[in-house]
This record gives sequence, structure tokens and C-alpha cells, in this order.
Amino acid sequence: MKSFTKYLWFQTKKQREFVPITDEVQQAVNESGVREGLCLVSAMHITASVFVNDEEDGIYRDFEKWLERLAPSTEDWMHNRTSDPNADAHLKRTVMGHQVVLPITKGQLDLGPWERVLYGEFDGRRKKRVIIKILGA
Amino acid sequence: MKSFTKYLWFQTKKQREFVPITDEVQQAVNESGVREGLCLVSAMHITASVFVNDEEDGIYRDFEKWLERLAPSTEDWMHNRTSDPNADAHLKRTVMGHQVVLPITKGQLDLGPWERVLYGEFDGRRKKRVIIKILGA
Amino acid sequence: MKSFTKYLWFQTKKQREFVPITDEVQQAVNESGVREGLCLVSAMHITASVFVNDEEDGIYRDFEKWLERLAPSTEDWMHNRTSDPNADAHLKRTVMGHQVVLPITKGQLDLGPWERVLYGEFDGRRKKRVIIKILGA
Repeated sequence: MKSFTKYLWFQTKKQREFVPITDEVQQAVNESGVREGLCLVSAMHITASVFVNDEEDGIYRDFEKWLERLAPSTEDWMHNRTSDPNADAHLKRTVMGHQVVLPITKGQLDLGPWERVLYGEFDGRRKKRVIIKILGA
Repeated sequence: MKSFTKYLWFQTKKQREFVPITDEVQQAVNESGVREGLCLVSAMHITASVFVNDEEDGIYRDFEKWLERLAPSTEDWMHNRTSDPNADAHLKRTVMGHQVVLPITKGQLDLGPWERVLYGEFDGRRKKRVIIKILGA
Repeated sequence: MKSFTKYLWFQTKKQREFVPITDEVQQAVNESGVREGLCLVSAMHITASVFVNDEEDGIYRDFEKWLERLAPSTEDWMHNRTSDPNADAHLKRTVMGHQVVLPITKGQLDLGPWERVLYGEFDGRRKKRVIIKILGA
């Protein structure tokens, strides 16, 4: 059994941003040497997300509008009385999910035709990390 | 270490539909020969979902009403200006989740009394796939 | 390859409650002897959640308010015509997620600075279980 760990770093320019990372994840799979296994890709911060969806600007804007409606940044959340007034980012990331587990088959991410891996930032402009943990043979 | 891969195919008659798949997943576990391990069940399309919930018609209808309220199919989403006007299906599947990882203990899916595995279709009437990837011993 | 299984039991005093479980999960990792691997932590009931977020009272209250707004307990859901009138708990748990997969590196949960594992109960005052399933070496 092989295991492999890699960290990706992010520092987005905007408060909220979607960043495609499929190629970086496949690169990690290549480095791991794993041919059959599972690949966890997980945000290490609770105001960020890793998810699978379309790599398309329209849907990014739909997500942005929709998440702001579901969890408004302007609302008087209790968590905003702490030193980090980013409650809406916690809620937005909860909707989007914090991680994915990707199947690896014959050394490749075994994804459907439109499946792309994305990093979702909801409280950006600071350094954040994503962990890739691969298990298999 | 053993690994095992299987694909399930779906083509629902309705645009939105919930399909129970627990038995198909247990069947894959049987075929894998894995006694202790993890079983990923993941939609390979970004307008479909795999999730664990109740196999009960009332909750299906509640999900349907609730998801349409949270992410209306009638709204003017940006993604609908592409060739695939199914933005609401992307959002609905995001709420429901795109995958589950199920524990395998003594060759059986180790589920609680009411846990059932379901496929959620939000843009149906076309061929879709789910991947089952099993890792263990 | 090693595998390890442990069950955590809960019986909350309140209908809805968040319970920190990071230490219990790390304890299971210690017992497993796994140094590199994946740790699934999954609610075995469909009205409960396991998720990663902040261990902070303000965000707990924000989640409570927000989930009640998204999925009101007072609404006339179809599932409430069954013997278990807890439809809102099914929906709330769906938003929060039912499980997490945590990376294990050098025998420790490989979590970011603010990542904490939480059990979310949405239909409490009865016995519930969480499964921890660890795979690795």
C-alpha cells in the first residue's frame, strides 16, 4: 500500500474566488505512483471549500449570487462578534462542501466528462492550504 | 490491499428523480471481496448526486419542494446562457452532495438502521454514470 | 494495510446540539496504530451530521438560526405524516453534511489551525451512533 501527501497553497486576490485545481491534483496522483486508489482533496480552512463542478464563468457567478442570498455577508451573525467577522464565509463553505474524495483508476483521476475539481475561497486575501492525501497501490 | 471499480448507469424518465441504490452498492462490495475498507460512491456528472438518507416517498417530495425553493429552475441563471440551461441542477446537486464514502465491516456496508444510499438526478432523461471505488482488505 | 473500526455513542439533552469530537477521533487514530491513512467519521443516522468547522459558540448559534431559516421545523413537510415527524432534521443534516474523511499524517489528524470535528444533532434526545473507520499503514 502506498500513501502520499501534498499541500497546495492559495492566496486569492479577491475575498471570494473559484480556482480550478484539477491539473494540480492529477499532478499529485502522478507523483504518488498510485494506480488504483482514493485521493482526498480537502480544504484545511473552515472558510474555504473543495468541490467538483463545472469550470465555467456563468456557474461561478451563479454560485456567488446564490451563496450570498443563502448566507448574506451583511447579516448580523453572532460569530462576527469574534475577532474574525467572517460568519458568512463559514456558512457558504458549508453549502459548497469542504472536501472531495476522487477515485484513481489506472493512474488517472477517474472523473466524468464535465467533472472538474475547484477550490472555493470565501474569505480570501490570506494564505490558505489544501491537503491532498492519496491511498492505494 | 484490494481495490475494485464498478460503474452504475442511469437514465431516469423524469427530469428529477431519486433512485435507491443500496443493494447495487452492497453487490459491488460482495464482488470486490473486501471485508474491511472504504467504499466511495460518487456521481460522475455535476447535475446528479449520491447521498445517504431515508428511502421514503414523503421525504423525496420534501427534498423536491425544498430544493426548488432554494435553487429555482425558473430563475435567470448565468449558466443558462450556455448550451446547457441546467444551472438549477448544479445548485441542487451541490446542496445534496455529490458523493458518499461508506464503511465496510466484515464484508457488509456498515450502515445505521435507516441509512440508505440514494442516487439523486436533477437533469435526467440522459445517460449518467456513478462510480463505485472500493479500497480495503 | 491496517483497518480499524470504532463507534461513538451520543444522546444529547437538547433536540439540536453541536458536540466537539476531535479528541475522540484522534484517540481512535492512536488506537488504530495507523501512521499514514484516511479516517472516515460518519453519522449512522439520517438526522445527524459530522462536519468540520469552528468550535465557537457564536457560529453554533449562527448555524442554528440559519438552518431553521433554510429548513423550518414548523413547516408542513410530507415526511411528517410518517411516525417520525422530523423532516426538518433530515434537511438540516443534508445542509451540514453527513460525514468527513480526515487525513492522517505521522499518526496525527492532519488538520488546519481552526479545523475541528463536530457532531451535529438535529433530532436528539435518543441514542445515536457515529462510525470511525480508519484505513492506512
